[in-house]
Amino acid sequence: MSAWIGIDIGGTNIKIATVSPTGKVLARGVVETRASEGPAPAFQRIHEAARYLAGSQSVAGVGIGCAGLIDAGRGILRVSPNMPAWRGANLGRIARAHFRLPIHLENDATAAAFGESFVRGTRGRDLVFITLGTGVGGGIVADGRVIRGVSGFGGEIGHMTVDPDGPPCRCGSHGCLEAYAGSYGIVRAARDAAEARGWKRAHKLSGKAVTARDVLDAARRGDSVGRAAAREAGEHLGIAVASILNVLNPSAVVIGGGVAGSFDVLAPHVRRMIARHAFADTARAARIERSRLGNDAALVGAAMLARSSTRPVRKSR
Amino acid sequence: MSAWIGIDIGGTNIKIATVSPTGKVLARGVVETRASEGPAPAFQRIHEAARYLAGSQSVAGVGIGCAGLIDAGRGILRVSPNMPAWRGANLGRIARAHFRLPIHLENDATAAAFGESFVRGTRGRDLVFITLGTGVGGGIVADGRVIRGVSGFGGEIGHMTVDPDGPPCRCGSHGCLEAYAGSYGIVRAARDAAEARGWKRAHKLSGKAVTARDVLDAARRGDSVGRAAAREAGEHLGIAVASILNVLNPSAVVIGGGVAGSFDVLAPHVRRMIARHAFADTARAARIERSRLGNDAALVGAAMLARSSTRPVRKSR
Repeated sequence: MSAWIGIDIGGTNIKIATVSPTGKVLARGVVETRASEGPAPAFQRIHEAARYLAGSQSVAGVGIGCAGLIDAGRGILRVSPNMPAWRGANLGRIARAHFRLPIHLENDATAAAFGESFVRGTRGRDLVFITLGTGVGGGIVADGRVIRGVSGFGGEIGHMTVDPDGPPCRCGSHGCLEAYAGSYGIVRAARDAAEARGWKRAHKLSGKAVTARDVLDAARRGDSVGRAAAREAGEHLGIAVASILNVLNPSAVVIGGGVAGSFDVLAPHVRRMIARHAFADTARAARIERSRLGNDAALVGAAMLARSSTRPVRKSR
Repeated sequence: MSAWIGIDIGGTNIKIATVSPTGKVLARGVVETRASEGPAPAFQRIHEAARYLAGSQSVAGVGIGCAGLIDAGRGILRVSPNMPAWRGANLGRIARAHFRLPIHLENDATAAAFGESFVRGTRGRDLVFITLGTGVGGGIVADGRVIRGVSGFGGEIGHMTVDPDGPPCRCGSHGCLEAYAGSYGIVRAARDAAEARGWKRAHKLSGKAVTARDVLDAARRGDSVGRAAAREAGEHLGIAVASILNVLNPSAVVIGGGVAGSFDVLAPHVRRMIARHAFADTARAARIERSRLGNDAALVGAAMLARSSTRPVRKSR
């Protein structure tokens, strides 16, 4: 049985795994990301680690998930927020020179969406993945295929406008989903709620170390400021999800990313807004659920994309 | 050279055409829709008309576009707003019995999206079609394939929430795009603007016969009530399009439907909101333009879907 190698290139770490044809992680390793280093020496280290992980197992292909704007067809990292030195690099070619195997390069959120889709089988063929972290990202799978858009920018669910008069977003726009449900949006909402209640409270919750998780933990404990912020984030997430349901009619909306662990606090507000704004049939068709693969989603997704691009998807499942 | 037959089933008329492999309408006819009639006798008449139109030309397949919820895989019209008597009918089987040819059944807006995609060639492979009429509908083509969603409800762009505190929509929700840019939304906006300016104006614009077209014609003439309504409709259409650009990154957003003839009045507002709410790269990648096929979009799209389902899309283009 062949395995596939999945690689998830992040700003701090590069995760590497061997993945079975059914999407199971067989062995895993991590190498550090060196900001100063170009992609060629990095892939030298990645290849060594991967070879060690694979051992005597035969490897059929390599899938790479990477933050940034990807030209998947040509294997080029066009824009990279975390590693400016990698901008424009043909990672496909560099990786192929080391591995001498078919290489598939994909945006990390898109790869994660495919991973979550893959592990759900037929129930995952129409799936939207939303990653809640500092920013809000996403990936779309429709009828078993990832949606990239004409220039690879597809899936920017965090920058759907959920309220045109809403707060400023990092992207320069106003009222994006991210401005509510990104971690800075959640902290901002807590600060607003605290201010509305008087500065004593605000001080308590607006110290340097306050994170979105602190806010949502406070909400879980019943803190009124935390609950107000959770409501604001969850309602706007629900409005965006309702629009996505009406436009894409997926069978699953999967929530991942660092804030996904606090999704229980947001979920009631999400569901209330879906009931208000989505068609009943469309809402019924979709499960809203947490990521099954967690931090492995991009890793497994990239490996399984490499697998499906070397063998036709329909035949191999 | 074979032709394909396209059929567009509407509540008043059924349009029929023979269509060339390049998407040109070769001959066309119309038969009336009889509300009381079931699908079997209707297809008797449709088949006779199609046979007359095709003459001695060989026909390779038949594509049917129909309003409602379609199970394209099985050829079943699951829900039909215009023809309740057709609900649940296996139009694929009924049509096949008459034509003895491969049949492709598709939602009419999805078929229209494919038609607009097809006539644009590679520039149309990632395309979003928005139809502005009484309601606001839509269809999505991603990487050359139509997006239907898991239960066939995909493409309901008119029911994206553009302002959660917005006016009521026919669907029961609030602040849907349709509540602003559907013809009833445009007339409502004119009435609101007139009321805000005093009843004399309102009376002038709120007579029984006032249509969205009247309102947008008034806007074109510089009427302040018409202009306010056009601004409200156009801005909210632009907000929805901006979200679509960020999520799907299409190369074209095509505006069709009965109100498309007045799109010039809405376009400046649409473009302003895209500039405010979409990523610059995503906005640059997409042309916002009027339908090229007009009333033929669903007809041509259905015929070309029949063509691509009998021959693989990639090979035949």
